[in-house]
Amino acid sequence: MRSLIRPLVRALHPYVPGEQPKIRGLIKLNTNENPYPPSPKVLAAITRAVDVRLRLYPNPTSQRLRERLARLHRCRPEQVFIGNGSDECLALAVRAFVEPVSAARRGAADPRATVQYFRPSYSLYPVLADTHGAARNEVPLAPDFSLPGVAALRRGRAWRFDAALTLVTTPNAPSGRGYTRADLDALCRAQRGVVLLDEAYADFADEHALPLALEHAHVLVARTFSKSYSLCFQRVGYVIGHPTLIAALDAIRDSYNVNGLGQVAAEATLADLPYYRAHIATIVRTREALGRTLATIGFEVLPSQTNFLLVRPPVLAARTWLERLRDRRILVRWFDTPELRDALRITVGTDREAAALVRAARQILRDARRSVPATPVRRATRGRARR
Amino acid sequence: MRSLIRPLVRALHPYVPGEQPKIRGLIKLNTNENPYPPSPKVLAAITRAVDVRLRLYPNPTSQRLRERLARLHRCRPEQVFIGNGSDECLALAVRAFVEPVSAARRGAADPRATVQYFRPSYSLYPVLADTHGAARNEVPLAPDFSLPGVAALRRGRAWRFDAALTLVTTPNAPSGRGYTRADLDALCRAQRGVVLLDEAYADFADEHALPLALEHAHVLVARTFSKSYSLCFQRVGYVIGHPTLIAALDAIRDSYNVNGLGQVAAEATLADLPYYRAHIATIVRTREALGRTLATIGFEVLPSQTNFLLVRPPVLAARTWLERLRDRRILVRWFDTPELRDALRITVGTDREAAALVRAARQILRDARRSVPATPVRRATRGRARR
Repeated sequence: MRSLIRPLVRALHPYVPGEQPKIRGLIKLNTNENPYPPSPKVLAAITRAVDVRLRLYPNPTSQRLRERLARLHRCRPEQVFIGNGSDECLALAVRAFVEPVSAARRGAADPRATVQYFRPSYSLYPVLADTHGAARNEVPLAPDFSLPGVAALRRGRAWRFDAALTLVTTPNAPSGRGYTRADLDALCRAQRGVVLLDEAYADFADEHALPLALEHAHVLVARTFSKSYSLCFQRVGYVIGHPTLIAALDAIRDSYNVNGLGQVAAEATLADLPYYRAHIATIVRTREALGRTLATIGFEVLPSQTNFLLVRPPVLAARTWLERLRDRRILVRWFDTPELRDALRITVGTDREAAALVRAARQILRDARRSVPATPVRRATRGRARR
Repeated sequence: MRSLIRPLVRALHPYVPGEQPKIRGLIKLNTNENPYPPSPKVLAAITRAVDVRLRLYPNPTSQRLRERLARLHRCRPEQVFIGNGSDECLALAVRAFVEPVSAARRGAADPRATVQYFRPSYSLYPVLADTHGAARNEVPLAPDFSLPGVAALRRGRAWRFDAALTLVTTPNAPSGRGYTRADLDALCRAQRGVVLLDEAYADFADEHALPLALEHAHVLVARTFSKSYSLCFQRVGYVIGHPTLIAALDAIRDSYNVNGLGQVAAEATLADLPYYRAHIATIVRTREALGRTLATIGFEVLPSQTNFLLVRPPVLAARTWLERLRDRRILVRWFDTPELRDALRITVGTDREAAALVRAARQILRDARRSVPATPVRRATRGRARR
């Protein structure tokens, strides 16, 4: 039976998405969703489209959406690719620009077969490389998650300036750290392969790097309607870049990759941007306030340019925090990897959700300080995590 | 610039989907869509779901839909895979079960790198093989498009019983020919690789082969909500088969591959099957009546077990028919391939659309018989097509 499946596929460790439990009253701060609903105009536009047209295929190229995004970003529709969420965009980029390594030569450092990225960044990247059968080049970030300069990368020698595809999460996830356009520009100029700047969280940042995709023929910027536009449910992401690279993504996608109501919703979103900008501003305010409050009760809070905070919690192990918060119906994200084992990633929700989180954190701390036996567990875990 | 793209991708000829023009009053009989809308209950269920939940990720495994389909087909949810349309299911099957051929050995007949199918069948298959970098083994059907028996395939020698993946469109598209479960069973038993029975049109047929996916560990059946369930717009397809093969498809798909409103729509569809069965029966009646009428005015009409008819039109070349029908705002499909160049594929619409088609055909014939110069064009084209 299993022999019918490609050895490469048999060996895969699939990406584990954050939980999507349907528990009443749960405060869900684990998958970086926007706490605010789509705009009433978007909901109305979708509702109006729920009719006999559903029997028809959607526009295969999402043409109207391309045109509207081209207008927004001041480029041509041929510079816009629309995907079934930005995850599909990333997967297609790997398949369009990176050769699979033949099984015999797996591990060989052929730059044409190399997907490169910093670690930590979006945990999907290694999954995409493995699924395609490409080599991964993972280069660790400094403990503060800042973007290494080109000179430092050259000195470090691990970085490949000739990698077929370099994926940069900017602002970085899961740290929340923002990167300047100037620093990204310098990195892009040094790369000889394709660079994809994965800007899923750029709307929450002071700066974005979209112009680099219009200036450099080898640079792509990926965006999503999921985060700042509250549209996770409908799976719409996009890529901006040179028409030749965009055409390569189009050549290998499914013919009708983006569902019709998703296209309708995304088009309506672009017609109501002030609604979303107001909510983005609110989220940024909540993020800053929550960060300050968590810091006062003992959390180490990393600066964030996204809609989440990476924090190192006090007293108990991060994993214990995950469980204790969950007991109080608050879901956050914990990653079982060396760089992140001592941290929690907390999505910025509404002010009310932030207040509930702070209340729960205070209770957990009070309880933990009362019962001494929790501490050794924590020390052990932190010891491993901090190596 | 182009050197940044994989040579394989640069060389691709993308699949050309049927036109989706938005012309008022157009009778669209070119992409085998269902002429009837989704059920009112389905439209209501989608409308009810257009709310704050859109900000959240959809269920990553389409779990409820899997459970409902498992109940319908009397199997377990682990035997059900949900895809972003059945096109995604087919693409994933190629990537899960077929090795890419290394560029150097392209064309070599490694069965592990071979996608096999009859010709003609769904024109997406060669595109999927090429996109993956797999070898294709295309075996011609007899002129009547019937399924060759295993003995005949052995004698013919072109067929590979060891191909990693065999794709069988059943009922066949674009011919409309139905295949019996017994004949498909015999073929499946003879194959050593995975067999995917692509049953996009099975609901319009007298017989289907879904039980084969439950009996044989190496057989998958793909279905879609697009055709019989009028849901092209929302991209939902599925595969039934052994849990081990289903898990392989799951391992390589995008995490949130099926949009949320598509899941909602598909679930609601399964709760209102009598509505769809009634429309399917109507389409079958219209198909039979339309076929008889077209035959009386000189069309050669192939027997169909689908929601379309493959016909060889009289007097004028098929391509000319395509254009003349289009002039009368009726869109049908013509394929520029040797086996099909003398034929048109006509989707079965409503009775009213069928009547409009017959009216237009009669007019075109009258006009053609009046003006003699059209005939040579036709003879030349038919000569090539019939070789």
